[in-house]
Amino acid sequence: MKYTLGNGFWSRRILKVTEKMIPLQLSILKDEAPGTEPSHAIENFRIAAGLKEGDFHGMVFQDSDIGKWIEAAAYSLKLKKDPALEKEIDDIVDIIEKAQMPDGYLNTFYTLKEKGRRWTNLQDCHELYCFGHLTEGAVAYHQATGKTKFLDIMCRFADHIDTVLGPEENKLHGYPGHPEAELALYRLYLETGNEKYLKLSRFFIDQRGTEPNFFRGEWEKRGQINHWTGRPAALNLKYTQAHMPVRQQKEAVGHAVRALYLYTGMADIAAQTGDETLAAACEALWDSAVNRKMYITGGLGATAMGEAFMCDWELPNDTAYAETCASVALCFFARAMSRLKTDGALDDMVERELFNVIPAGVSLNADRFYYVNPLEAVQGVSGKEKGLEHALPARPKWFACACCPPNVARLMTSLYEYSARETGDGIVLSQYLDGTMDFDRARVTLETGYPWEGALHYTVEAREDQDVFLRVPGWACPEETALTVDGAPAEVKPEKGYVRLALSRGTHRILMILPMKPRRLYANEHVRHDAGCVAFAFGPMIYCLEGCDNPEPLWNLKADPDAEITVSDFRSELLGGVRVLKIPGYRRADTADGLYSEKKPVYVPQTLTAIPYYAWANREEKDMRVWVRE
Amino acid sequence: MKYTLGNGFWSRRILKVTEKMIPLQLSILKDEAPGTEPSHAIENFRIAAGLKEGDFHGMVFQDSDIGKWIEAAAYSLKLKKDPALEKEIDDIVDIIEKAQMPDGYLNTFYTLKEKGRRWTNLQDCHELYCFGHLTEGAVAYHQATGKTKFLDIMCRFADHIDTVLGPEENKLHGYPGHPEAELALYRLYLETGNEKYLKLSRFFIDQRGTEPNFFRGEWEKRGQINHWTGRPAALNLKYTQAHMPVRQQKEAVGHAVRALYLYTGMADIAAQTGDETLAAACEALWDSAVNRKMYITGGLGATAMGEAFMCDWELPNDTAYAETCASVALCFFARAMSRLKTDGALDDMVERELFNVIPAGVSLNADRFYYVNPLEAVQGVSGKEKGLEHALPARPKWFACACCPPNVARLMTSLYEYSARETGDGIVLSQYLDGTMDFDRARVTLETGYPWEGALHYTVEAREDQDVFLRVPGWACPEETALTVDGAPAEVKPEKGYVRLALSRGTHRILMILPMKPRRLYANEHVRHDAGCVAFAFGPMIYCLEGCDNPEPLWNLKADPDAEITVSDFRSELLGGVRVLKIPGYRRADTADGLYSEKKPVYVPQTLTAIPYYAWANREEKDMRVWVRE
Repeated sequence: MKYTLGNGFWSRRILKVTEKMIPLQLSILKDEAPGTEPSHAIENFRIAAGLKEGDFHGMVFQDSDIGKWIEAAAYSLKLKKDPALEKEIDDIVDIIEKAQMPDGYLNTFYTLKEKGRRWTNLQDCHELYCFGHLTEGAVAYHQATGKTKFLDIMCRFADHIDTVLGPEENKLHGYPGHPEAELALYRLYLETGNEKYLKLSRFFIDQRGTEPNFFRGEWEKRGQINHWTGRPAALNLKYTQAHMPVRQQKEAVGHAVRALYLYTGMADIAAQTGDETLAAACEALWDSAVNRKMYITGGLGATAMGEAFMCDWELPNDTAYAETCASVALCFFARAMSRLKTDGALDDMVERELFNVIPAGVSLNADRFYYVNPLEAVQGVSGKEKGLEHALPARPKWFACACCPPNVARLMTSLYEYSARETGDGIVLSQYLDGTMDFDRARVTLETGYPWEGALHYTVEAREDQDVFLRVPGWACPEETALTVDGAPAEVKPEKGYVRLALSRGTHRILMILPMKPRRLYANEHVRHDAGCVAFAFGPMIYCLEGCDNPEPLWNLKADPDAEITVSDFRSELLGGVRVLKIPGYRRADTADGLYSEKKPVYVPQTLTAIPYYAWANREEKDMRVWVRE
Repeated sequence: MKYTLGNGFWSRRILKVTEKMIPLQLSILKDEAPGTEPSHAIENFRIAAGLKEGDFHGMVFQDSDIGKWIEAAAYSLKLKKDPALEKEIDDIVDIIEKAQMPDGYLNTFYTLKEKGRRWTNLQDCHELYCFGHLTEGAVAYHQATGKTKFLDIMCRFADHIDTVLGPEENKLHGYPGHPEAELALYRLYLETGNEKYLKLSRFFIDQRGTEPNFFRGEWEKRGQINHWTGRPAALNLKYTQAHMPVRQQKEAVGHAVRALYLYTGMADIAAQTGDETLAAACEALWDSAVNRKMYITGGLGATAMGEAFMCDWELPNDTAYAETCASVALCFFARAMSRLKTDGALDDMVERELFNVIPAGVSLNADRFYYVNPLEAVQGVSGKEKGLEHALPARPKWFACACCPPNVARLMTSLYEYSARETGDGIVLSQYLDGTMDFDRARVTLETGYPWEGALHYTVEAREDQDVFLRVPGWACPEETALTVDGAPAEVKPEKGYVRLALSRGTHRILMILPMKPRRLYANEHVRHDAGCVAFAFGPMIYCLEGCDNPEPLWNLKADPDAEITVSDFRSELLGGVRVLKIPGYRRADTADGLYSEKKPVYVPQTLTAIPYYAWANREEKDMRVWVRE
């Protein structure tokens, strides 16, 4: 499938990624960005390649940033040829090639800093994680350019790994401390057809969490020392997803990104191999993550401590971690699950991520990034007070652990992969990505003002009789959704979230109009942090109050539960162009006698103004909240 | 002043401390309590005394537990002679004497474990803290029995300290990392009349936080190593109250107990010396702590991280630390402030502590203890989830760091010290402690059903013409407070919280009737965690909802803001005898569609039942909350 940008919401955002974010990230990786802490990621490879003198700097997983950036850049090349960018990648690949050891091993941390200690700490030290990201980059670059050098490098590394890890007696029975190699090996298998990679991915999945526990053994061997602190520390097997065999897992626990990368690999393998027990585990873990542990914004992983899931329903708003990468990873997981089944509920969650946490992870100028995406920000507290240091009130330029920015870049530049898929039944159009998608069987063009307007103007040029599946979002009432095919009204009775249209060969104009109106959302009765509160949505977007538009403190505002919410016209001058919500409500207007008193709070009418959550923290530093007292 | 127990609320609680808690704590300190982790505190002294072979075990401040327990036991002896208990103390004092070094030094951690490293880490290692608590014990035991051995031991240690620390060139210019010696040296000065101790206390206060910073110097010298982790760590000067000279401090910051012990010493010295700048700092710090950083229950220190104050108005309920010791320490601070001025606002805060956090720190059976006193408890989350591990849903038997239980014991057994004082103007009756207080100038007896009833029946036998000051609590409206003196109505126009009665020589019957009725309390508009919520009070007690009496989850309950709250008769069978509040309200009764949905929550009428906060967690393990949605 070949995708060509249009000029709608997503196309403009993708263009910002290709034109601004990808060059910016390259300059950071090359340590050339003024005022930004040097990444040293390329420098590490240069030193490992013998092209320069120096020491390793950065995180144990610093190599992975290069893999993710190349992957994003490769997708960008698929969207638009760019010889200069291709040359940059080729130059980096040349360095990577020189940094590879004769036996295929490739990891600058172990080559430069911890010589002779390869594969001694799979739990903490990310060798397989870096392998995975470089491999994803290599696969994408091969797809984009047909060039094989990077792919060959990574195959050599994969072949080497296959001699070290595996079920055989003479190999280590280990698996990645940070899952990623599983899904990357699957992609390498798809790209090369080499069954060995599929087998190794499956081994990692099957072996994980079995007894005797590999990580426990490693930990005992190294004197119970934790790599990060250099001191003895208790094992946290949930953190590394090694607490039980994957098929027994029912609850999403531990480090959220690790979990979701693992689940993605599991779903990939389940779909590829028809492994039903593995598929059932994926179903249960999906259900746990999205139906009991997800913020309304799509955020996943409620606590900063271990960047981890908390227990069911525990979703604090101000201390939320909700790592951008976890939301990106949920899109991966959903896409892999879609290989198991077509279900709009999966795509609803992708849409939730795409319109909320993921764009919030990037400034409107595409030059600053959020790692953490809280649902409440308080000046003087967020980013400062104990337990809230991670919840920064403004986006930083970059991070020492720089996983999130390139993760968003690679997702955005490959958004077409999440927006449509060809199945045996037909073409499934799952996200409303404006532009043109060329499939073998049809060309589909979407023109739309979505998400600001509900009209989706599709032109489908079917090269043969062709079924097309149009998604009706879970948030849209089918009765209020209009559909015409070549001008004739069609029924909107979605099954599993999709309306199936049987199109004959030829060109068809399809118009679906989604009911765009402000909606009030309430949390499940088990969610204590949102009790008594309401959130506001418009289309796929969750809205929030920001201090720039409302009198602070925001916790003293109350929304009227019944009065009509109005939505503004599109305001092109505001926050890159948005529609704002106006919500009738109240503001506490009294000044209390002391810290606690019998004086009843006094409320006066106050119209509340809400903006899309993704656009927060792009103006003055002010308070923000998603859940508003009602 | 000599106090004799009555048979009211406080007398019964004090009796539980003397009859149950003090023997229990001794058995723990002697490692004789079955099913309780050995304390090893007495064992450490025995080994240091050469009476036994073995190693030091426990915290670096393990010695302090002995000091605090002896202090509590000494007060108990003042209430009631007990030769067996006195013998126990004498035996311990004999061991302590043998553990003292020839030069007067006394600390089992340094004598046994860190030989030769005395006075090398004042910041972390609590030598002066242990000195302080042992000294307070020695002073109390001298007062109770007239025996001088323990006092002499501690004077020898104080004399030794005076040769090591001080302003002179050849001495260390240091001060306690955990304040306590300041107030203890002041007590030692009062008991012995030796000005040297007053001078040393003052040196510690004046020297603290000055430049060059002593703790920074120590830290550099030991390679920036933190004692607790054994690794280099950043200095946290606020934690140890060394961030600025005390007279410049305006905000209560850092470790709450350290802060409040320091402020107590400061107020003691300010009152003793007439140091006005020091008194002004005390005023500002009092104001900061109680008017912007205190929970409605009297809890102080909002975060577990560093057991510390958070910024103004930041008072999270579920993750609250609110250490029992901090509330005990506030009583110390208030008592010291009362030497500077008579102000009912000080005593109101003592009353808040005495009826809320402090009794909550002990089970009704006086055999289990809370260190941490949250205002919201959630089953499956409190005590378990990240960031809430400290907020235990049930009281443990003891703690590795066992500061709180003996702190409560010594406060309870010396409660008369906080309930009345003789001043130049007359006798100030600040708390409604039932029983008889014998002053030089008068004998005052109080019979009362307080806090369940408002009638306070005083009999004052004045040995001379005598002014008596009766406190009218800040929570009681003076217009609704009735007062008769010898049957004749008297005006209730309190000044600074006190009604002054000029009594002639002879016996007088005074009846004050406080208006006992349920009250709704609201937090200041700056407190985000309590926005939209109400708390309930009856007399000095804050009430809470517990899952034992209300349908869970409690966050789905709402109180009617206007309907009448009723108070039950005294229920002797419930929770050691309480009156409960019945609050008309509502309960969310719907089951949501999924995690988030447009379905509006449905509320049905529900009467809420509230019990005194101090009595929570004495039945089945259930949810609890103080702040209720309104």
